[in-house]
Parts: sequence; C-alpha cells; structure tokens
Amino acid sequence: MQKFDFKTKLPFFKKLGNDERILLNDNIITKKFPKGFHVHSGAEDCSGLIIVKSGQLRAFMVSNSGKELTLYRLLEDDICLFSASCILKQINFDIYVDAEKESQCYLIPTNIFQIISEKNQYVSKFINDLMSKRFSEVMWLIEHTLFKSFDERLASFLIDQSSIENSTNLKITHEEIANHIGSAREVVSRMLKHFQTEGILNIKRGNIEIINMNQLFLTAKI
Amino acid sequence: MQKFDFKTKLPFFKKLGNDERILLNDNIITKKFPKGFHVHSGAEDCSGLIIVKSGQLRAFMVSNSGKELTLYRLLEDDICLFSASCILKQINFDIYVDAEKESQCYLIPTNIFQIISEKNQYVSKFINDLMSKRFSEVMWLIEHTLFKSFDERLASFLIDQSSIENSTNLKITHEEIANHIGSAREVVSRMLKHFQTEGILNIKRGNIEIINMNQLFLTAKI
Repeated sequence: MQKFDFKTKLPFFKKLGNDERILLNDNIITKKFPKGFHVHSGAEDCSGLIIVKSGQLRAFMVSNSGKELTLYRLLEDDICLFSASCILKQINFDIYVDAEKESQCYLIPTNIFQIISEKNQYVSKFINDLMSKRFSEVMWLIEHTLFKSFDERLASFLIDQSSIENSTNLKITHEEIANHIGSAREVVSRMLKHFQTEGILNIKRGNIEIINMNQLFLTAKI
Repeated sequence: MQKFDFKTKLPFFKKLGNDERILLNDNIITKKFPKGFHVHSGAEDCSGLIIVKSGQLRAFMVSNSGKELTLYRLLEDDICLFSASCILKQINFDIYVDAEKESQCYLIPTNIFQIISEKNQYVSKFINDLMSKRFSEVMWLIEHTLFKSFDERLASFLIDQSSIENSTNLKITHEEIANHIGSAREVVSRMLKHFQTEGILNIKRGNIEIINMNQLFLTAKI
C-alpha cells in the first residue's frame, strides 16, 4: 500500500512537534479487511484510530436481543474514532464496525494515539470535531427513526444505498436492510412488496431494482 | 446568590492560568429561570456554558412536525454544553432546553468560554468528556426507544420521574409524558389506563399515583 499522506489525512498533523510526527510515522500500520470482517466489537475492543483508504465500513449498534441498527458508514478518508473509544473515558456504549466491502485501512494504535492526544491540544480539538460529527449523525438518525414513518425510512435508506453504490440495482437482502434500519425482515419485505405494487421498484432474488427514483424521493419526503 | 465555587464545579479550573481565572471570575453571570422558561432554543441561540446551581432543566429535541423527545435532564451541578454549541463547529443539530422547575444557574458567556477553550488543552478535554457523556445518554435513549416496547418505555419513564421527584405521586399530564418519550397523548393515555387496570397506578386529574412499584419495575424490565 502506498505511503500514508499524514498531512492531508490528519488535520492535526501540521500542528504536531517533530517527535510526535516521528512517533506516528514509525507506528502507523496498514490493514486489509476482507468483506464481512468484524473490525471492531464494542468497548472491550480498542485497537486504535482507523482511517479508511478504500472500501466501506459500517458502524452499528446491537440491542440486547441482537437487533442491529446502522449508525453511519465510513468511506474513503473517513476516520473511525470509536475503535479508540477506550481513551474517551465517558463513553459507555458499544459500537460495532464491520467491513461492508473489502477495505484497506490505516491504523494508529491506541497507545500511540493516546500519547499524542494527551500532549497536544490540536489533537483534543480534532477528537472534539470528530465526535461532534458522529453525534450529529446519530441525532439525525434519532429524528429519522423516531419521527418518520416506516415507508419514509425505507425509501430514504434505498436512496442512500443507491447513492453509495452508485447504481439503481441494489444487491442487498431484505434481512440486511432490516439490520440497517433496526427493523424486522418481515416488515421490510411487506413494505418492499408495497413499493413494487406502486411501480417504484422490482424485487428479484437478493436484488432490488429501483425503477422510479422520483416516486421513491416523494415517498421519502426528502 | 452565593459566590461561584469554581474549583469544585469546573474540573478544568485548577489547570487554568491566573489570567484565565480572572477572566472567568469577572465574567460569570448568575441567572434565575422561572418554571417553563425557554433557556436555549436550537443552534441559533448560543448564550454560553450553563451550570445548574439548583432546580431542573430539560434538554430535548423537536421534530419537524413539532413532536418533542427528552434527551436528558440537568440537575444540580450539571453543565449544559449545547447552550454553547456554536463553538463546536461540527454540531449541526438543534437542542432545546427548558426550565422544568424554577432554576438558578451560572452562565459563562460564549466569548469568554471560547477564549479559554482555545488556549487551554484541559478545557478541550473537559469538552470531550462532557460531549462523550451526553453522547452516551443519547445512545442509551436510541437503544431504549428503538428496541424496547412501548409499555417498557412508559414504565421506565415513570420510574425515572418518581426517582427525580422523590415521590410516587407524580404531578404530570399525559401530554407532558408524551413529549418526554416522543409519543402521542392518546397512546400514553391508553397505556396508563392499562397500567391502572393491572393495579400498577391510579390516574387522577393531572396526577399519577404509583401504587405497585415492584410491578412497574417488572414491566420496565430493568
């Protein structure tokens, strides 16, 4: 994998001292995760700061009964803070991260990130900014899941998915959709059938083809 | 109101320089909010860091359709970060704060807090900790509202409310409960009636008396 471009990828890098730059440079690790790999599993797991070079990671929560809900996606250049959540003392929830596609990542190990964050105010500010960003995404999700009807949420998810995949032909199962939006497979299947009846999409095996994107946008009320 | 005890109330105070301490001391303001007062209204409003001396504030979100959801309560010594959210660049959601009871508070104006937070790493860390804490509360709320059934949520709310009020006799309307848990008044009334039939509580005008706390705990599955 090519050399890590610290200056563009890490906003705080310019503000680091020489020693800190050397420390980072000597300790950054490259990682390759196959599709489906469990990159991070809750608070027990604290590998470090993960920066996505290519591919796609999914951050999600899991309820006591095993139900999943996608919190946000991490694409190229996105940084995963919660894989280093052990250095954030007041965080007491578990986030899970899986590779949705084969992904190449850089990892700054927790102990190295901790040394730098304790010494340098700009790293603290960077953590603040990143946490604010994730907090905002989660607040959007609350508004969305609590105050929107199920057809709006499902339509919205399909639009997002189509944008991420850059295709109107989505290779995704009803079970996977249910795990993304914190619902049950049966409920998803029923609504997809309803969308099909309305001429919005065609359901095939393990595949959903969006045929009327305008109508999908109207349903999502975006 | 008595002099503000900076050392015990603000964890970062010990780490401030003399100039910063004087700046804080000269600029902290005392505020008295009557019950029902709108202390903070979304991102447009950015008065500063609020520290509760006595009383009770409620932080909540409001959906596009006007539905409310309580995010957390601020009691004695609690600090409200989002009333200074304009200094957090990546925060792009609106939080509202009302006084649930007559409250006495201290306010560190935004410009003063900003000066100190930009200079001092311990203030950045303090912001990190406080944001992590609120983030954790909101994540708990998601888990609770999404993955729990409505009777569990309502029972849980009544237990919390009884603990905050230190009474089994709750002076609260069905409308107010609905606003706390992001539901509709009719749905709350129906479930409360069901709880009454089960001998858990007595409904009176503007008043709910819990008569079987054990059964309420069983219903909440806590």
